Amino acid sequence: MIVNCTLKKSPITSNTEALINKVINQYEILGVETEYVRLVDYNILPGVSSNEGSGDEWPMIFEKILDSEILIVGSPIWPGGPQSSVCVRFLERLDSLFHEKKLMDSETGQFLVYNKVAGAVVTGNEDGAHATSKNILWALEEYGFTIPANVTTYWVGDAGPGPSYIQAGGEAALYTNKTLRYMVHNTTFLAKLLKENPYPTNLKKLNEDAETESNKVQKEKKISKS
Amino acid sequence: MIVNCTLKKSPITSNTEALINKVINQYEILGVETEYVRLVDYNILPGVSSNEGSGDEWPMIFEKILDSEILIVGSPIWPGGPQSSVCVRFLERLDSLFHEKKLMDSETGQFLVYNKVAGAVVTGNEDGAHATSKNILWALEEYGFTIPANVTTYWVGDAGPGPSYIQAGGEAALYTNKTLRYMVHNTTFLAKLLKENPYPTNLKKLNEDAETESNKVQKEKKISKS
Amino acid sequence: MIVNCTLKKSPITSNTEALINKVINQYEILGVETEYVRLVDYNILPGVSSNEGSGDEWPMIFEKILDSEILIVGSPIWPGGPQSSVCVRFLERLDSLFHEKKLMDSETGQFLVYNKVAGAVVTGNEDGAHATSKNILWALEEYGFTIPANVTTYWVGDAGPGPSYIQAGGEAALYTNKTLRYMVHNTTFLAKLLKENPYPTNLKKLNEDAETESNKVQKEKKISKS
Amino acid sequence: MIVNCTLKKSPITSNTEALINKVINQYEILGVETEYVRLVDYNILPGVSSNEGSGDEWPMIFEKILDSEILIVGSPIWPGGPQSSVCVRFLERLDSLFHEKKLMDSETGQFLVYNKVAGAVVTGNEDGAHATSKNILWALEEYGFTIPANVTTYWVGDAGPGPSYIQAGGEAALYTNKTLRYMVHNTTFLAKLLKENPYPTNLKKLNEDAETESNKVQKEKKISKS
Repeated sequence: MIVNCTLKKSPITSNTEALINKVINQYEILGVETEYVRLVDYNILPGVSSNEGSGDEWPMIFEKILDSEILIVGSPIWPGGPQSSVCVRFLERLDSLFHEKKLMDSETGQFLVYNKVAGAVVTGNEDGAHATSKNILWALEEYGFTIPANVTTYWVGDAGPGPSYIQAGGEAALYTNKTLRYMVHNTTFLAKLLKENPYPTNLKKLNEDAETESNKVQKEKKISKS
Repeated sequence: MIVNCTLKKSPITSNTEALINKVINQYEILGVETEYVRLVDYNILPGVSSNEGSGDEWPMIFEKILDSEILIVGSPIWPGGPQSSVCVRFLERLDSLFHEKKLMDSETGQFLVYNKVAGAVVTGNEDGAHATSKNILWALEEYGFTIPANVTTYWVGDAGPGPSYIQAGGEAALYTNKTLRYMVHNTTFLAKLLKENPYPTNLKKLNEDAETESNKVQKEKKISKS
Repeated sequence: MIVNCTLKKSPITSNTEALINKVINQYEILGVETEYVRLVDYNILPGVSSNEGSGDEWPMIFEKILDSEILIVGSPIWPGGPQSSVCVRFLERLDSLFHEKKLMDSETGQFLVYNKVAGAVVTGNEDGAHATSKNILWALEEYGFTIPANVTTYWVGDAGPGPSYIQAGGEAALYTNKTLRYMVHNTTFLAKLLKENPYPTNLKKLNEDAETESNKVQKEKKISKS
Repeated sequence: MIVNCTLKKSPITSNTEALINKVINQYEILGVETEYVRLVDYNILPGVSSNEGSGDEWPMIFEKILDSEILIVGSPIWPGGPQSSVCVRFLERLDSLFHEKKLMDSETGQFLVYNKVAGAVVTGNEDGAHATSKNILWALEEYGFTIPANVTTYWVGDAGPGPSYIQAGGEAALYTNKTLRYMVHNTTFLAKLLKENPYPTNLKKLNEDAETESNKVQKEKKISKS
């Protein structure tokens, strides 16, 4: 599942989409099926639940994510983010994974995206790719995704306003062409490996263990104070 | 002008609003008139121009900002931002200040918000206030706002999910009550000072000077290469 | 291998160490051997190479990392980082992994830490844990570490100056006690899995493939321009 | 006062210094005297106090900052920071401004750097300038510096490893040459304005006012609970 968080609705040209198309092409070479969504074309309501009610088109997107083994999030860079508002909206909506009990595995307490892997694709004029990738990948790690080695691919140009990816000829950028291949290969490998060997971690059991410890510490403190 | 970037539409209780109300109260004590906008109640289209066309309610908000001397941006914290998607949308839309020629002073080239000052108000459960304030204030500094001393006010609780500002009794938090006063006093002082003593900087002239230097350096390099 | 990036030399009490001790304890329960280093006790010279010459104690630390299967980086939070200068120094020195050819696998071009996993432990008074973890984990992902699900564990208190982890009774904090267990279990599982099933990705081959593409694109552009 | 936070000791060529030299040149044109310090040439001990004892060369640097009206912080970009470890060390040591009572004005409680202004100069291969500037300027704003409009100047090249500022011909970069002039002019103007018109804010009085409010809120809560 590849999500493009451009600010531009279809069919306006999206630089992030141009880079994503290369990613899709590499997945195809590996025989990995991809689904692509341009999020701004949908009505994603503000909020942090899995369903914000009437008119909310998030549930359909969310289902696609849950059906996939790999999530690639693409975002342009703008001041104030640095990832786009559409990207932040996307990550906010995924927060339900973290706080809605019904979305956790009833036996292990694992978040629903455990054993899925994620990567980031970023394009910008000039700066902010690392920060954008950090924000995306860290949130996903908290939600339960695994982040394989070398899964950030991006293009930015020289400092200051200037041409974007397509116009600047970013499609010839060697570093970007290298790293997108690393991302595709490493996500594909680790997604398969985790599918066959899922995390055995029982969060519920660990929670109980943690509660026991927390209670014990608190008790000891009270005793030492009296 | 105070903007609340909560994800919750009116009349749902907003924790950020509760803190903003304290800020408004302090401005009132100083005799400073305030206008308050809850951004999520308006239809702010995605984009980075000053007007994204049919249905876009941004131009009205933008005008209010240009009519004010102080801009306070309030945001909750969510994973992936850390500032909210509504806040990022707000900062994206202000980007027109930076790239639309019609919005620059015809004589000095100054961005339209020169001589205005800004501050940030942040609330979250547990973490991310510094990062949110950084993202807000840095973008505003780039757009031409001046950032006075001590203009970040925030509340966050202990690590991990937990009660928000109102429920946690954050309204009694001493550090937050101190810093919001610093913010109100320092923004009020500096806004008045800059109104009476505007930046004389002529960006257009400096741009010409920079072009002369850049051209000269490039010429010298060519000579040294040949 | 667990690295504590506190600013305080031994034997001064380190709050980050107090949290790290819990992490070590959990690894012991799982039968995982740990080695602990308090970086500020060593003379780590500024630079980004694997050996900065006379007096540099980094090579010995670096070797320990290469000998381990799991890397846990602990850092306190201070303004300007938010991770400590000792932590930034640590991550800078690891940069050799990314740019020193002798440190890459001669056949696959993989960075030397491929198939190792990493996690982050953060303590601070009040704010910045997410940002610190992002900075740590993202740099490690770029260097070739894999980031398992839920490998950030931290403690921060309420907004503003206040007691640190130990004094505030953070050792009873339930969320921290939960997440440190997730981290220990998930890093242990994935480190073992990757040891038995290493990434097959041949970066060298992908680099060649990327070069072919970049050259082709550049050629086409020249043709379309003429 | 201009601080270079390069990792390279004198006399190794520093790219950040090359850009700083341009900044110094512009200040000279305006008749503003500058002092330049390359921090890595000094022994700055880890810690957050104004004096870390035997061998610590920070107190001498700190005095220079207190004697200046403008502080410009220059930093290279490295993974894990993104600002350098030397830069983070610098900002950590300034933290004494924020927590050492003896460094606050006895009458107003103002931090010692109130009425001083600050700017940031950043150089890197490819990405991270915005994030570095955010981290620097935000910390300085918290310590009591004022951040004028447009005081970030930087150079970064295309995505991926590549030549640095000098080698890449960054000295001809128009955007960088423009923004360094904005920075020099705006810091000079605002430093002079604030020297003649210092902040009247009495933080001590505001602290008392805040305490009264916090106590009142806490009292009301207890009543409403009983």
